[in-house]
Amino acid sequence: MIYLDNSATTKPHPDVLASFQQVSDKFFANPSSIHQLGGQTEKLLLKAKQQAAELLKVKEEEVIFTSGGTEGNNIAIKGIALEHQNRGKHIITTEIEHPSVYEACESLKQLGFDITFLPVNQDGVVSVEDVRNAIRKDTILISVMHINNEIGSIQPIQEIGEIAKAHPKIFFHVDYVQGLGKIPLQLNNSGIDLCTMSGHKIHGLKGTGILYIKSGTKLFPLFHGGEQERKIRSGTENVAGVVAMVKALRIIKKRELDEINHVHSLNKYLRDNLSDFPLVEINSPSNNAPHIMNFSLPGIKPEVMIHMLGEEGIYISTKSACSSKLADESRIIAACGFSKERATSALRVSLSYDNTIEEIDVFLDKLRKGIDQLKEIL
Amino acid sequence: MIYLDNSATTKPHPDVLASFQQVSDKFFANPSSIHQLGGQTEKLLLKAKQQAAELLKVKEEEVIFTSGGTEGNNIAIKGIALEHQNRGKHIITTEIEHPSVYEACESLKQLGFDITFLPVNQDGVVSVEDVRNAIRKDTILISVMHINNEIGSIQPIQEIGEIAKAHPKIFFHVDYVQGLGKIPLQLNNSGIDLCTMSGHKIHGLKGTGILYIKSGTKLFPLFHGGEQERKIRSGTENVAGVVAMVKALRIIKKRELDEINHVHSLNKYLRDNLSDFPLVEINSPSNNAPHIMNFSLPGIKPEVMIHMLGEEGIYISTKSACSSKLADESRIIAACGFSKERATSALRVSLSYDNTIEEIDVFLDKLRKGIDQLKEIL
Ligand SMILES: Cc1ncc(COP(=O)(O)O)c(C=O)c1O
Ligand SMILES: Cc1ncc(COP(=O)(O)O)c(C=O)c1O
Repeated sequence: MIYLDNSATTKPHPDVLASFQQVSDKFFANPSSIHQLGGQTEKLLLKAKQQAAELLKVKEEEVIFTSGGTEGNNIAIKGIALEHQNRGKHIITTEIEHPSVYEACESLKQLGFDITFLPVNQDGVVSVEDVRNAIRKDTILISVMHINNEIGSIQPIQEIGEIAKAHPKIFFHVDYVQGLGKIPLQLNNSGIDLCTMSGHKIHGLKGTGILYIKSGTKLFPLFHGGEQERKIRSGTENVAGVVAMVKALRIIKKRELDEINHVHSLNKYLRDNLSDFPLVEINSPSNNAPHIMNFSLPGIKPEVMIHMLGEEGIYISTKSACSSKLADESRIIAACGFSKERATSALRVSLSYDNTIEEIDVFLDKLRKGIDQLKEIL
Repeated sequence: MIYLDNSATTKPHPDVLASFQQVSDKFFANPSSIHQLGGQTEKLLLKAKQQAAELLKVKEEEVIFTSGGTEGNNIAIKGIALEHQNRGKHIITTEIEHPSVYEACESLKQLGFDITFLPVNQDGVVSVEDVRNAIRKDTILISVMHINNEIGSIQPIQEIGEIAKAHPKIFFHVDYVQGLGKIPLQLNNSGIDLCTMSGHKIHGLKGTGILYIKSGTKLFPLFHGGEQERKIRSGTENVAGVVAMVKALRIIKKRELDEINHVHSLNKYLRDNLSDFPLVEINSPSNNAPHIMNFSLPGIKPEVMIHMLGEEGIYISTKSACSSKLADESRIIAACGFSKERATSALRVSLSYDNTIEEIDVFLDKLRKGIDQLKEIL
């Protein structure tokens, strides 16, 4: 198998799975139970939280474990909206957010909120000036993603953080699901109040995630109950999942440091080769995140190419997995100003540290053969 | 180890863990990815949903996979409240709900809702007449638990379902977390619109659960995004967790059928013996759910007894795990009208199918020794 769909999800690391297994079997108690087994389980949970905080260079109390990126984004956006609506009902975001941000914002219209969706340039990047100019008296939240999941464009988070710092009453949320483990992001003293991460995108497990919430940030919890996770995310803690998440975080953080150049070279190799291919139009900007390469094959239905490659055991994507089965056109590629033909024929190759040049070679070979074959039919 | 804290959480069944492991490793793709591996993963997900529906005797589209009981209860309550608030802002529930229902209702006050918390009798049971009389023109939701998690009292769900049927515009939600796998509950044609279940209470995994939502029930999703789970619960599906949940459900449903009498006899044995113990005051009513036995040791701090037993490898609880570390007094036992002394000295033994008479004998022996020892200090 040549798996090139790592932005949709990744294969869990064997050590992550082993940790999950071990904790589930040995430390299965409820960490809120006051007997000894509960106490040991709670200790494990606290240690995991401490380790996560160290790895993210934040305070322990700023780490909230969630069930994934969608939950994190929804807690952040709806939590701030519901809690601070008396101060204002305006939210600023972009046209290229993941559905879990985009639709969460859309849903708030039903509750009387006004949402500004900022455009992006042809490289899929929002303008810092646009963010600044969009701020109104009733703005309570800015939500901008770090790396876009379809084309890999990187947003100017640091600069928007400076704007947020200058407006201490406006909360700033960053969807960091695609960036984690690939491109470091400073959380502490960054202007960022909330930052979403997901386990299954970093060789962790589905159903796990982290939401960074800066100390002192008040929000309306989506889950009320037993007051776990500092009352922000009630529910019996998935301790095994938490340990697995932190294990995955530790491994990916090390690889980010040691092996990111490998991903850069895979990306360059892909780009150099694809540029010469017939039909191919590259959608990812050149100063892109290294693990995402998006290109269109105008005239060719992406699902046909994906299936052809799949028959060879090569797995790539069209658009993001989360919207693969919905509308035909990519909202993101359309937002970059590309033609409808291009926005309906996009393919995404997304890399992990485990991919090799040899795999890319096989992929390129099969892709070229596929294009030649389909071109004839066209 | 003698584990008697099964209402806090259960030990995952080895087959459940094995299924999780296998799916995580082999079917790790995103079920929304349209390549072959995504397709296989999606098939697995659909098959699991179909099996869950069969086991629960409901329609496939009525099964929504969640991250647990707290999530299910919050989706149900807030989802109905936010979606139908234009029709009314009144909710009926009871004084003995789990915090994930109780606090979810409380939180809605902040959004302008009015909550009626109905009392219970000394057996911890709500009156059907009280429910009927609490209904107002602006009532949109009734939420009543099936089995109480602290004392095991069983609520008249079927009768309340009849009331709900007579008021088709009022939604009826049941927290079935403690009942699942112990006492069957008819969902289909029952008047129940929403029913919460949790994986880790039935030897499944933490971070898994099911929310039954009757066809046609509209609610405001807590997680917007990629429109998974029929748009009600977006987020990349935890397919391995789903398969594990259904495996646990299948196993517990079989045991419910074949082995419930064993739990009844353990319960009777416990009750018969405890009745003769010094100090002991039994709080659980005699027509109780078989797996929960709550009693007080007035004058003895429950945490002291729990630790003494814990030193012998015997694990029991005080109140429910979810509130163990909070206030001293049990809100549930107070609601039954018992004294403060009794409500602050309650212990809970909660059984699984795996417990044996021999284990209960050891527990009773150590408990009696503990009582004798502590009585002397008193
Ligand atoms: C940028 C981005 N945000 C959020 C999510 C949602 O994360 P999850 O799948 O963990 O719910 C994804 C992936 O689906 C993503 O790529
Ligand atoms: C009756 C009841 N409802 C809801 C819950 C919450 O379920 P979970 O722990 O899966 O969030 C519990 C257990 O904690 C419970 O006993």
